[in-house]
Amino acid sequence: MARTQDLISNRVDWVLAGEDTLSDAMRYALTGGKMLRGFLVLESARLHGVDEQVALDAALAIECLHAYSLVHDDLPCMDNDDLRRGMPTLHRQWDEGLAVLAGDALQSLAFELLADAKFGPHALDLIRALAQAAGKEGMVSGQMLDIAAESSPEPLTLAQIIQLQSRKTGCLISWSAMAGAVIAGADTTPLRHYADALGLAFQIADDILDVEGDAETVGKRVRKDAAAGKATFVSLLGLEAAKARAVELCDQACAALDVYGDQGDTLREAARFVISRDS
Amino acid sequence: MARTQDLISNRVDWVLAGEDTLSDAMRYALTGGKMLRGFLVLESARLHGVDEQVALDAALAIECLHAYSLVHDDLPCMDNDDLRRGMPTLHRQWDEGLAVLAGDALQSLAFELLADAKFGPHALDLIRALAQAAGKEGMVSGQMLDIAAESSPEPLTLAQIIQLQSRKTGCLISWSAMAGAVIAGADTTPLRHYADALGLAFQIADDILDVEGDAETVGKRVRKDAAAGKATFVSLLGLEAAKARAVELCDQACAALDVYGDQGDTLREAARFVISRDS
Repeated sequence: MARTQDLISNRVDWVLAGEDTLSDAMRYALTGGKMLRGFLVLESARLHGVDEQVALDAALAIECLHAYSLVHDDLPCMDNDDLRRGMPTLHRQWDEGLAVLAGDALQSLAFELLADAKFGPHALDLIRALAQAAGKEGMVSGQMLDIAAESSPEPLTLAQIIQLQSRKTGCLISWSAMAGAVIAGADTTPLRHYADALGLAFQIADDILDVEGDAETVGKRVRKDAAAGKATFVSLLGLEAAKARAVELCDQACAALDVYGDQGDTLREAARFVISRDS
Repeated sequence: MARTQDLISNRVDWVLAGEDTLSDAMRYALTGGKMLRGFLVLESARLHGVDEQVALDAALAIECLHAYSLVHDDLPCMDNDDLRRGMPTLHRQWDEGLAVLAGDALQSLAFELLADAKFGPHALDLIRALAQAAGKEGMVSGQMLDIAAESSPEPLTLAQIIQLQSRKTGCLISWSAMAGAVIAGADTTPLRHYADALGLAFQIADDILDVEGDAETVGKRVRKDAAAGKATFVSLLGLEAAKARAVELCDQACAALDVYGDQGDTLREAARFVISRDS
């Protein structure tokens, strides 16, 4: 994924060239991530013969959308986190007002990047899918479920956690993995199945990291789920069963790529990375 | 504008039919406004022969975008307002976390509504223009200038206030007035000139209302600019000269519509409404 990070970071410097505080804050929010979603876009595009320079702006768009969601989630009125990607969260580095605005502008920028004729006849499909993945039926509704769970006297069931996860993080991961097929007007089914398994594996790995990782390596606060008495895949399944489930999902994700043969190997590696990562 | 309000409110009930808290909050944010921007979209569409049912979703999109900006601007970390459109602001009615999320989902919804084939071959132009009007070079940058002005030892000059206004409110008003021409692929120049004058007149009227209005009628806190020692059109020009300038801009806005003949009369009335409104 190092190459994806270089490609996207260079494009960020081009798109966000301003020397004003808002541009600084937006660039800051786009710095230091794994860029898994951008990587999925570029791989999905490669599998469908979409030009990399075209796909790059879709990759940057999803990273903008993801970055905005992290900046807003970290706000004191939400998760109130001080550390993100090993750096102070945006509202700690500057202030809350700027964090709200930089997040807002990052969401606008995501759609601005996609509203380009270079995406061809399926550009509107790409935009509509992102708006749906991000909005009231997607990511934001997942965040709503997450907040509701915190004040609920009953811990969530496994089915509820799966639903929460599939909205909060799954929707954007699915959009990313399918983007190349959408741009090419190809069948999105194999990549949707891949992304469904990958998204769930990703969240289980996140829950495991919260238990086993240290904040310095992970780059954000850990042990916070247990401290908040929150039900997670680990609290419900136990650590070993959670790890086994992540491996199983990784295998499912890899199998969903059969139709791509060897060409799917990079996405298979990404699935294995997701469950073995330490940050 | 009563008919526009009915049309858009009915469409809101259709698009946001959920009975969950997030849908409630989004509907709340879309309630009670003048819907000037939506009105401009519908009139602009009528002038260019665009079907009203098509234009209606563009009108709703700009009202979603505008509503999101108000919800976020009212937050304690921004303007910290308790009253909006004569009702408690969203974070007072519910809480700050929901206000952040409802605003975020309203922005997504605006783009979801526009990402539709019914807008024809210029749909991408419409989306790109909205993303630019909303984002780092548009509305958000205007809000940044506004925040910077508050902590600056020097009050703003007239030229700086005009720049701030043109970004903070002017960009969305321009998008609204031009939307019909954009959808029809027609020349947007007359409507851009109309909107430039209208947007400035609108802000001057707002500054006058802050001095002359009462909170109950205006529907939001008044006298806040003077209390904050903020430079406004009224503080810089004086009340009478500000009123004269608003009338002059209204005349300019009306004159910009010459090319539309009598067909432009409803937009001319809207310009006169903008400078004579009491809320």
